[in-house]
Amino acid sequence: MNYTLLTDLYQLTMSYGYWKNELHTHEAVFHLFFRKNPFKGQYALAAGLQTVIDFIENFHFAKDDIAYLATLTGNDGKPLFEPAFLQYLAELTFDCSIDAIPEGTIVFPHQPLLRIRGNIILCQLLETPLLNILNFQTLIATKAARVCAAAKGEAVLEFGLRRAQGQDGAISASRAAYIGGCAATSNVLAGKLYNIPVKGTHAHSWVMSFEEEMEAFEKYAEAMPNNCVFLVDTYNTLEGVKKAIEVAKKLRETGHEAVGIRLDSGDLAALSIAARKLMDEAGFPKMQIVASNDLDEYEIEKLKQNGAKIDVWGVGTKLVTAYDQPALGGVYKLSAIRAPQEDWKFRIKLSEQAIKVSNPGILQVKRYFKNGKPVGDMIFSEISPTFYHEMVNFAENEKISFAENTQSENVLAPIFRQGKKVYSSPTLPIIRAFSLSQVALFEGITDYKVGLETTLYELKMQMIRDRIS
Amino acid sequence: MNYTLLTDLYQLTMSYGYWKNELHTHEAVFHLFFRKNPFKGQYALAAGLQTVIDFIENFHFAKDDIAYLATLTGNDGKPLFEPAFLQYLAELTFDCSIDAIPEGTIVFPHQPLLRIRGNIILCQLLETPLLNILNFQTLIATKAARVCAAAKGEAVLEFGLRRAQGQDGAISASRAAYIGGCAATSNVLAGKLYNIPVKGTHAHSWVMSFEEEMEAFEKYAEAMPNNCVFLVDTYNTLEGVKKAIEVAKKLRETGHEAVGIRLDSGDLAALSIAARKLMDEAGFPKMQIVASNDLDEYEIEKLKQNGAKIDVWGVGTKLVTAYDQPALGGVYKLSAIRAPQEDWKFRIKLSEQAIKVSNPGILQVKRYFKNGKPVGDMIFSEISPTFYHEMVNFAENEKISFAENTQSENVLAPIFRQGKKVYSSPTLPIIRAFSLSQVALFEGITDYKVGLETTLYELKMQMIRDRIS
Repeated sequence: MNYTLLTDLYQLTMSYGYWKNELHTHEAVFHLFFRKNPFKGQYALAAGLQTVIDFIENFHFAKDDIAYLATLTGNDGKPLFEPAFLQYLAELTFDCSIDAIPEGTIVFPHQPLLRIRGNIILCQLLETPLLNILNFQTLIATKAARVCAAAKGEAVLEFGLRRAQGQDGAISASRAAYIGGCAATSNVLAGKLYNIPVKGTHAHSWVMSFEEEMEAFEKYAEAMPNNCVFLVDTYNTLEGVKKAIEVAKKLRETGHEAVGIRLDSGDLAALSIAARKLMDEAGFPKMQIVASNDLDEYEIEKLKQNGAKIDVWGVGTKLVTAYDQPALGGVYKLSAIRAPQEDWKFRIKLSEQAIKVSNPGILQVKRYFKNGKPVGDMIFSEISPTFYHEMVNFAENEKISFAENTQSENVLAPIFRQGKKVYSSPTLPIIRAFSLSQVALFEGITDYKVGLETTLYELKMQMIRDRIS
Repeated sequence: MNYTLLTDLYQLTMSYGYWKNELHTHEAVFHLFFRKNPFKGQYALAAGLQTVIDFIENFHFAKDDIAYLATLTGNDGKPLFEPAFLQYLAELTFDCSIDAIPEGTIVFPHQPLLRIRGNIILCQLLETPLLNILNFQTLIATKAARVCAAAKGEAVLEFGLRRAQGQDGAISASRAAYIGGCAATSNVLAGKLYNIPVKGTHAHSWVMSFEEEMEAFEKYAEAMPNNCVFLVDTYNTLEGVKKAIEVAKKLRETGHEAVGIRLDSGDLAALSIAARKLMDEAGFPKMQIVASNDLDEYEIEKLKQNGAKIDVWGVGTKLVTAYDQPALGGVYKLSAIRAPQEDWKFRIKLSEQAIKVSNPGILQVKRYFKNGKPVGDMIFSEISPTFYHEMVNFAENEKISFAENTQSENVLAPIFRQGKKVYSSPTLPIIRAFSLSQVALFEGITDYKVGLETTLYELKMQMIRDRIS
């Protein structure tokens, strides 16, 4: 399956216009960023870059794509695209430069998650798929980090496949949830594709396919003695727990230990407390209690406040759809353009809301540290004539200075240079470990300062005045 | 890409248990249904069946799937699955019977959207992908129908790709949105795959890549005179409208008519009224006003109340993610099982909430009509010994009778028989036309009666009593 046509039609009609006007010989710079942290949180967790890299490495218009585009017509019934343009597309190969914030990095509003520089046609065609991929995976990785924070170190399993938004809505979500800190997924295909640990035992239907619950547990334990988590709420939860304990005893006689039980309905706090007591008294203090049923970070916090004795959290729908905010509003804006042999011209998109005016330049983010702790992020343009360690904060419009010798690092890394991949992609476990270290690094930080480097800020204000006047 | 492993691990561990216990020689019946209308609405619009059919027709465990499953281990580090079972999976072919409600049909809570009958292992393995596909597409088709209803016959364009939940989250959403009544999509790949009309012209970046807005419009019109919808809000909306009118005049001189303008920010009601006036006065009463910017059915209704002069509605994020309810809570429950040469045994899943107790039997839905208008849906079991045209309503638990000669039809259609497809799949335009006719048929109907056939209801009550005692 070739996904090159997974873009908005207007990217193609604009590309045609650029080509007709020979603007494809111009070099453009676009940035992808969001304007507000999701879930009213303090930050987002970048994810999706490897999926973007894979997309770009497979980018090409196949013969049947071109044939399809040739069928499209305008309001006079005549073709939208002339054959020479379609031939241009057929021969188009990716040769842009991309810098991006590595997956697992904590990011903030207005920062470019990705910067692309090159042929404006390629920049436009990639806008939609890049937004599609980075918006969703960043959203889900962030949600997963929130759920894992609520679980305070206890394992969170991602169980969302059946309610996810389509097949890739599930697969991408499993990947991003793992980056965000989940321990495993129920999604076997995601496990295979990304080498994510997979977990699962049995459902109500297993119990219902036998006459009696006890028989169902016994038969399960016989079949799979090394993977026993008994789902105990098909008929009566605490009766189910007692039966699970009986079967765990028999299992122990054969040299196996039951992993635990799963609660999937009712008052999870009260039931888990009662189940824990029953299992402890029966000599199974290590049998885990897995809980599921419409959980999210708020529900987990509430259950913990109510004294729930839950060891493992199965989180599905509300994680993989980011139920309380199912989209990250990432945008992608042109910020500079130059004709061959000419200077860069910076660009902004105006808006009635000042915060929605885009930033001009070729942007990078510098993260400053004091005693190893991040203290502020400054967005600056790599081609600005001057540069000070001073910025204007987005939130309060106040100036913030960093001492010249403050430890700092650039957050965007080079990914492609003139179409060639120069980035050494980390493995998913490495990304996940980095993400966990980032969450720990930013723990307790609120109202983190993010701003625009002072000279760039002043340039932007001048551009706004010029455009309005 | 083979999606056969797109299932929950517990479907495979249960399958192993069934196989070990020779339950795969048993025949099982499962139903897929939801319990509550999405969006607090009056109904849902079924969608996704063709995607299910495609999934099933490609269902097979490939060599690398089997190799992956062989690597999975339990808590003792030993393999979860024995080789003979993996060999069984490698040779497994779909041979179940499926009945389902055709796409575009209006459906209600508790009704089986799909019924599957056959080898319990196949039923389990398909549970997760069937839920994934039907939950999402039914959700989006329903949302689209609501948005189109708010637009009252004006065209709705689906523009959601960039904020959709993954690549297939976008492609499936485009398909379902078209079924639900959208006129076109911006998603070119969805257009190619499903032959959905595609729409698009230009973005802010087109305007920003020229020094002046006027030049940008002129160059666009030169390049693509048969597809001109000018986006007018890059700098100042009404100034943009005036420039669009100037370019439309020049375009007319070349024998072309501008299609319209697009508003993407600000007070869409006030701006559209002002833009309409400008265009009418300039001699362009047929130039359309397209509006976009976080629209949904509620926003469209509000804009209409405020007198907005909008002809075409571009709806993105809130449609393709079903923003206010991003998941349909469809479930899939075992309802009957039989061993070889034995009678069917019916099954229910208990719950503390009566409405969540599943329905036993091999179910079909009969839709009754009076004077061509639907008056009630009765869920009944095809293998119940007796049958009356009387049901117990889910909502109020009241008995409702239909006269013997009331016009009625069975809603579920045969799709597969013993693995062979017996359904003649309608084309997408046919599905869409049927969906529009269904929405018209149910227009104005509120609190539609859906119930369980009386003898089946009594049987269910008896089963609950037996299981509790």
